[in-house]
Amino acid sequence: MSFITSNVSTNGLLYPRRMTKAETLRSLHHGPTILLLPNAWDVASARIFERAGFPALATTSAGIASTLGYADGQRVSRAEMIEAVGRIARGVKIPVTADVESGYGDAVETARQVWAAGAVGLNFEDTIGEGKFVDLASWIVEIRAATPEMVINARTDIFLDAIGDEATRFDRAVERLNAYRDAGADCLFAPGVRDRDTIERLVKAVRGPLNILGGAGVPPVPELESLGVARVSVGSGPMRATLGLVDRIAHELRNHGRYTSFTEGALSYAEVNAL
Amino acid sequence: MSFITSNVSTNGLLYPRRMTKAETLRSLHHGPTILLLPNAWDVASARIFERAGFPALATTSAGIASTLGYADGQRVSRAEMIEAVGRIARGVKIPVTADVESGYGDAVETARQVWAAGAVGLNFEDTIGEGKFVDLASWIVEIRAATPEMVINARTDIFLDAIGDEATRFDRAVERLNAYRDAGADCLFAPGVRDRDTIERLVKAVRGPLNILGGAGVPPVPELESLGVARVSVGSGPMRATLGLVDRIAHELRNHGRYTSFTEGALSYAEVNAL
Repeated sequence: MSFITSNVSTNGLLYPRRMTKAETLRSLHHGPTILLLPNAWDVASARIFERAGFPALATTSAGIASTLGYADGQRVSRAEMIEAVGRIARGVKIPVTADVESGYGDAVETARQVWAAGAVGLNFEDTIGEGKFVDLASWIVEIRAATPEMVINARTDIFLDAIGDEATRFDRAVERLNAYRDAGADCLFAPGVRDRDTIERLVKAVRGPLNILGGAGVPPVPELESLGVARVSVGSGPMRATLGLVDRIAHELRNHGRYTSFTEGALSYAEVNAL
Repeated sequence: MSFITSNVSTNGLLYPRRMTKAETLRSLHHGPTILLLPNAWDVASARIFERAGFPALATTSAGIASTLGYADGQRVSRAEMIEAVGRIARGVKIPVTADVESGYGDAVETARQVWAAGAVGLNFEDTIGEGKFVDLASWIVEIRAATPEMVINARTDIFLDAIGDEATRFDRAVERLNAYRDAGADCLFAPGVRDRDTIERLVKAVRGPLNILGGAGVPPVPELESLGVARVSVGSGPMRATLGLVDRIAHELRNHGRYTSFTEGALSYAEVNAL
């Protein structure tokens, strides 16, 4: 990374200073272009995203959980999740923000461990299980105190899990997201919102950078950028796409004994080793 | 698995008995059909192969190493490789055979740990680095003593690494593979052999079940079966194919801001969680 900011030295002169990874990630929420974050699930996927030129990346809890044999939703232990996040964070040079679900029982301790593992941002959900809200605003205040530089992305599950009366969903989501912003969140995440009009209204109604989850039915990134969305991530989509390919490979092998689905479009052995 | 064999009880009556995983894997080398083993690199890929109906599966050291951020060729630590193998072995019901490269400095201890981790077979290479041969025959004798039930697949790198004079390659490979068979190997692996004629000659020249690496330029599985090949595996091919897909996803996202390459053909979130 070559982001340069300036520091005022004790004698009043300006010296260029390399931004920390956390500063870089935070500044990318306020840059001239939208922050597009792919979500990695292991070091190999992270390195491919880094090689493609993304300035930062996120992790996917569902993706990491599935590589370890767990369903999504805090079934994986915090220790296993942090180990995977740390491998990814140490495995690339760009800043990494970690999806750590609902904090694994102690959000502040989880934030400390995320930071110690080398990630500089994190993503908390505001529900556990079936629409049961956690006190995310209070968590954010405590996390800001415990890990002051952390880039905190606060997610409301209201749209994603279709919580409560649809007629009041937008207003309730905005109320929550703005409370998280007041508590100190750097970015506000509303996964599950797909239509252009709602996204446009959300951008105007929330008082901070808005994160939209890209995917089927969502406007493409340039359109999100023109609407004023600050950040786009893709969740478990890419990981699930690779599992779809594994499924096609499995069936071609088992049913036809042919290799086409894994020999066409594969990275070479040398290319994988060079990652 | 529902393989049933029979046991003679003390009073001479036959009782059905469920075969152990090791017995199942061994017997699949001598069954009516060829043993087709896909190679997994994490629990998610392993479960997809199991769901597709494969009776057993292998691991890929190159694939596992890349998920952990290492190049292939014993750069990953034994502890990390065994942890990954154990997760896969515990994550499926079918027998798993582990690719453990050149034994990580102590092949017998590695075999013990593979067995303790729940895998019932393993795969050793007969070179370390640039064509430097290890004494694989002696290792096999010791591994058989240390882990008597282990299904041992002995691999020669002569074809894969194009070691020595091409005119003598076939004879040298056969000599090594037969020595490994005499030492107690259950299966003999000659990756790098692609042409039909050489495969046909190898089947006749080796004194045990022959394992061929499937992939580009190799006859499809039904043809390998008709030639008398006992086992086909696919190495890091499927893993490298998923990385090729990640690369296409990365470029579509970064260059066009579109989601098609990860939304078409993906497993659904619910399907991944159900794995």
